Amino acid sequence: MKDSQLVIGLMTGTSIDGIDAALVEVVGHGVHTHASLKHFLSLPFSGQVRAEILRIASGKMVTAGEISQLNFLLGHLYSEAVFQLCREAKAEIHQLDAIGSHGQTIYHQSEPSSFCGHRVNSTLQIGEPSILAENTGITVVADFRPRDMAAGGKGAPLIPYADYLLFRHARKGRVLLNVGGIANVTSIPASARMNQVRAFDTGPGNMVMDALAVHFTRGERQYDQDGEMAASGKVIQGLLDELLSHPFFHRKPPKTAGREEFGEGFVSQFFRRDRLDSLEDLIATAAELTAITVARAIQGQLQPGSHLDQVIVSGGGAGNHHLLRRIQALLPRMEVLISDDLGIPADAKEAIGFALLAHETLHLSPGNVPSATGARHPVILGKVIYGNNYGRLRGR
Amino acid sequence: MKDSQLVIGLMTGTSIDGIDAALVEVVGHGVHTHASLKHFLSLPFSGQVRAEILRIASGKMVTAGEISQLNFLLGHLYSEAVFQLCREAKAEIHQLDAIGSHGQTIYHQSEPSSFCGHRVNSTLQIGEPSILAENTGITVVADFRPRDMAAGGKGAPLIPYADYLLFRHARKGRVLLNVGGIANVTSIPASARMNQVRAFDTGPGNMVMDALAVHFTRGERQYDQDGEMAASGKVIQGLLDELLSHPFFHRKPPKTAGREEFGEGFVSQFFRRDRLDSLEDLIATAAELTAITVARAIQGQLQPGSHLDQVIVSGGGAGNHHLLRRIQALLPRMEVLISDDLGIPADAKEAIGFALLAHETLHLSPGNVPSATGARHPVILGKVIYGNNYGRLRGR
Repeated sequence: MKDSQLVIGLMTGTSIDGIDAALVEVVGHGVHTHASLKHFLSLPFSGQVRAEILRIASGKMVTAGEISQLNFLLGHLYSEAVFQLCREAKAEIHQLDAIGSHGQTIYHQSEPSSFCGHRVNSTLQIGEPSILAENTGITVVADFRPRDMAAGGKGAPLIPYADYLLFRHARKGRVLLNVGGIANVTSIPASARMNQVRAFDTGPGNMVMDALAVHFTRGERQYDQDGEMAASGKVIQGLLDELLSHPFFHRKPPKTAGREEFGEGFVSQFFRRDRLDSLEDLIATAAELTAITVARAIQGQLQPGSHLDQVIVSGGGAGNHHLLRRIQALLPRMEVLISDDLGIPADAKEAIGFALLAHETLHLSPGNVPSATGARHPVILGKVIYGNNYGRLRGR
Repeated sequence: MKDSQLVIGLMTGTSIDGIDAALVEVVGHGVHTHASLKHFLSLPFSGQVRAEILRIASGKMVTAGEISQLNFLLGHLYSEAVFQLCREAKAEIHQLDAIGSHGQTIYHQSEPSSFCGHRVNSTLQIGEPSILAENTGITVVADFRPRDMAAGGKGAPLIPYADYLLFRHARKGRVLLNVGGIANVTSIPASARMNQVRAFDTGPGNMVMDALAVHFTRGERQYDQDGEMAASGKVIQGLLDELLSHPFFHRKPPKTAGREEFGEGFVSQFFRRDRLDSLEDLIATAAELTAITVARAIQGQLQPGSHLDQVIVSGGGAGNHHLLRRIQALLPRMEVLISDDLGIPADAKEAIGFALLAHETLHLSPGNVPSATGARHPVILGKVIYGNNYGRLRGR
């Protein structure tokens, strides 16, 4: 095996903006992993594709055929992201060793419910990895969540493994906060072992703010740039209290959230009031909801016994200055940074994470953190689909 | 690696009866494969599960959540089939080396159509293999069709590779005819090389006959036992001619068919006449449709230049004496046998096939036959999901 491997990580999150693609050079594996980002890009979805994903992921009625067609189409779009990433990075496709692809979540239900006379929970990510393996010629590891859920975990969060590899510190206790559609936190106490890592979803990240921006600007704005609208509004306390009564916030971790909890149904609570309140006030309230639930989660539910010094923010929400100021205000004893300050671009962190998880799987090493997902034991995540570079794998 | 490997193959076909499970001992690999069936069983689906699969696979409107839940539930039901197979065979689960799982097809579209501004074809099999890997502890290879379709193939038929391993003959030209919901043929001329194998779907196998039996007996009968009803009926020539005008029968191979072509929509042609015709006559007509399209395919479209001596029938339709008599009558110069006559139980052949395909994938060997599927080149089929027996794989 080569000393270093070139791995691409692909991520499309619950915000459904587009495909995040990170080209990562990896040396070593497991706790000896050293990763460096060579290039990163986001390839936006067309309006038509985004609308179709949103329709399917919102629980609307569809046919199996539509999901099947979208699954294959996403495989092709992921391939385009890989080609563009390599072009921009001036890397040859055949130099790649592997691709890790998260896929697009269209359903996630971590708690079992009754189905055809059985108790079933499940998660469903699409974006056919066979297409990616064929189009690029590179071996793909994809669809990481079901293997953890099969082992009794929630199937999320999975980034804590990568967070541990990238951000653990001998003397500082760190919280990794990712603010995508959903927000999640990972805590890594100073000089922690892997099994001391805790992580869970705290609730909405940008999902509610984005939905309000899209709704009230009729799609002209997809999100609140830099948090400017929120900063000029006033929190509507009555609405905020109502929102905070959602049972998810009071549930004990481990727990996961998605569009099922904080999609259209949840956002409709804002629309009942839309004749009285300004968009700025509504978005300020949504931002405060994210800030408060993140702060409470860090203070109350995450490692009560450990000392945590820093909050390191990543994801699209790291660009929301208003949100970061609110989180800092609510956590006065902690230092709030963005991951760029530690050398990992905030937008790229999750895609880098799935490159590292794919790399672990190809070393036949587990990639879930049972203390974060609730799984009964570590498992080798994902599904391996062979490209025509399999000879290199065979040589191992 | 051990001299011989124990592999289970799991198959659930378009007829949606239940889970076929074959325990196979495999020595050697590729063209040196020797396979022997240790045990076989069919675990029927409950009425509720069968109805749910049928609903989703018939193109009815559903939610992504229902497909996701069914995907995980099938993973659990497949696990039960593995456990029961091992119990009956008095084999310990941990002696298994691998499981090959075809999954349940809920959509298959081999020809591209317009979708979100792109030309897309796709296939979708469900039955989450991560569940199977966790519950059994054994490494699983699953979901074989997308990788061939990604390489430009129709994603079907995939059994020709196994047919070649099991049935090729130095002096006899053979046609393997599998009559499941859909019927397909594979031709292997005497002393053929793999690239001389041809195969395609001929149209409905039992799908139409079964649908008629269920409809007219209000579910009391699932199929026409031994072909007795068909044998006592008379072919309705006008209806048969109408049915034979379906464009699928006139399309050139390679071609694949499914519930999309020969499900409810196709069967409705029989119901328009149901006040005039007896069930026996309708089923006789459906049986004749299968027999004629199979015979025409073998005579007209399959290897016009090669001499073919035998037709070896497998699948549920091998038990339909009337159908076999009709096929023999339509192919007077060929010998019509059932695969049991050559040591492979007719019901077990497809499940054995997916055990062999999984075995090939774990040897990093391609399992598709491009001359059968139309793929541009051979590919390593399927997706590998690691169980906790991966140490044995690592030892390779």
